Amino acid sequence: MATPEMNMIDAPVIILVHPQLAENIGTAARAMYNGGLTRLRLVSPKGGWPNPDAIKPAAGAHRVLEDVEVFDSTAEAIKDLNVIFAATARRRDMLKPVVTPKAAAQNFHDLMRQENKVGVLFGPERTGLDNDDLSRVDTIINVPLNPEYTSLNLAQAVLIIAYEWIQASDQASSFASEKTVAVAPKAELLDLFEHLESELDRSGFLRVPHKRPAMVRNIRNMLLRADLTSQEVSTLRGVIASLVDPYFKRV
Amino acid sequence: MATPEMNMIDAPVIILVHPQLAENIGTAARAMYNGGLTRLRLVSPKGGWPNPDAIKPAAGAHRVLEDVEVFDSTAEAIKDLNVIFAATARRRDMLKPVVTPKAAAQNFHDLMRQENKVGVLFGPERTGLDNDDLSRVDTIINVPLNPEYTSLNLAQAVLIIAYEWIQASDQASSFASEKTVAVAPKAELLDLFEHLESELDRSGFLRVPHKRPAMVRNIRNMLLRADLTSQEVSTLRGVIASLVDPYFKRV
Repeated sequence: MATPEMNMIDAPVIILVHPQLAENIGTAARAMYNGGLTRLRLVSPKGGWPNPDAIKPAAGAHRVLEDVEVFDSTAEAIKDLNVIFAATARRRDMLKPVVTPKAAAQNFHDLMRQENKVGVLFGPERTGLDNDDLSRVDTIINVPLNPEYTSLNLAQAVLIIAYEWIQASDQASSFASEKTVAVAPKAELLDLFEHLESELDRSGFLRVPHKRPAMVRNIRNMLLRADLTSQEVSTLRGVIASLVDPYFKRV
Repeated sequence: MATPEMNMIDAPVIILVHPQLAENIGTAARAMYNGGLTRLRLVSPKGGWPNPDAIKPAAGAHRVLEDVEVFDSTAEAIKDLNVIFAATARRRDMLKPVVTPKAAAQNFHDLMRQENKVGVLFGPERTGLDNDDLSRVDTIINVPLNPEYTSLNLAQAVLIIAYEWIQASDQASSFASEKTVAVAPKAELLDLFEHLESELDRSGFLRVPHKRPAMVRNIRNMLLRADLTSQEVSTLRGVIASLVDPYFKRV
């Protein structure tokens, strides 16, 4: 079984090509770490590296910033990797496969199981990746968005990839679905029905004989649908008892 | 066939509770519109509304900002909606269903096909939603993230929901529509809460002040979980009235 630690090391490398603002490196690091990605490479960041302006926007994702690797060119940055994806909103006639982030995340897992090292390129904030960089890429990741409005910033684009990555991971599936408390044994529910119905017979709510069966069914259905726990069944019995026989007597 | 325009109108309402910074309203609007969401409600935003500081961060998502609706309280903001989700990172013992954003997006489509109006609550930037707001919510959305680091800002959390929404929309258009009954509008449910709680205050069931908030939350949760229809809400109100003031008087 993969531990969280192993998953992080075996995760894709995020590569920011010519990022223009150190703040965006910080917010991208934060987005990465939310999805358990820790390996960040920078291709000639405009403000140089390390850069103190990245620290605050990283919001505690120090582990990502500490391990940043810097390269002079995209070619250098991808040299030791086996398969490169590029996240880009632009359409280009490059005849490369185009996948959604979800499909890409599944691909990352498949590729890495085959011992490939995977990288994902993100271009500069305004201009995006140039054709030269795209020419080195295996697959384009295109985020499905509102066709009338496509405006992701760098960190948001990274976040979508990181989010799909962690969802596709074993990890994600195991902590997203969590156990809740068991519902009450049916015996307790049947006692609740009997308690409520006998009080409603006594109060006159169920006094019309031909309507009684449907009314009882409706009330039982509501209570069944609530998936009550034992604790909740006894709370409801307390509610009924209290309404019928108040602690504070009416005058 | 549904046009994109129709899809946008039939989309969930995003509700920001006490947002502290207008910038974050702008970035949330941008995130929404990326996923084709256009209906934004604000519950007493700190800097008031409209607020010019939101415009630049919205990066052209004017359509969202123009249609913002402002409310004094969460209760007012959800009154006309049928089913409420809350995006929150916090764990609470509320015994509410917890779903991933992907499952939530699928739920939105299913619910709206049944003519429910759906809202998604997001809490204030640092503090998140309080227990009182959460007590009015049907389902919690929990974003599966790195268990060692969970740090989404408001716009990023909104983006994940909007992104899953538009992804589910692509798939949803192919589903056949099967109609069932809508759950009651929240106004009716809030009235039911008030009716029951005022009777329980009067009867003395809620007489211990430090226990009252948790007891009220528990009772609300059970009722929320039952997905009551309008008809059922009025049946329950009849049940309460009848227990308190019987048709057949006791001797």
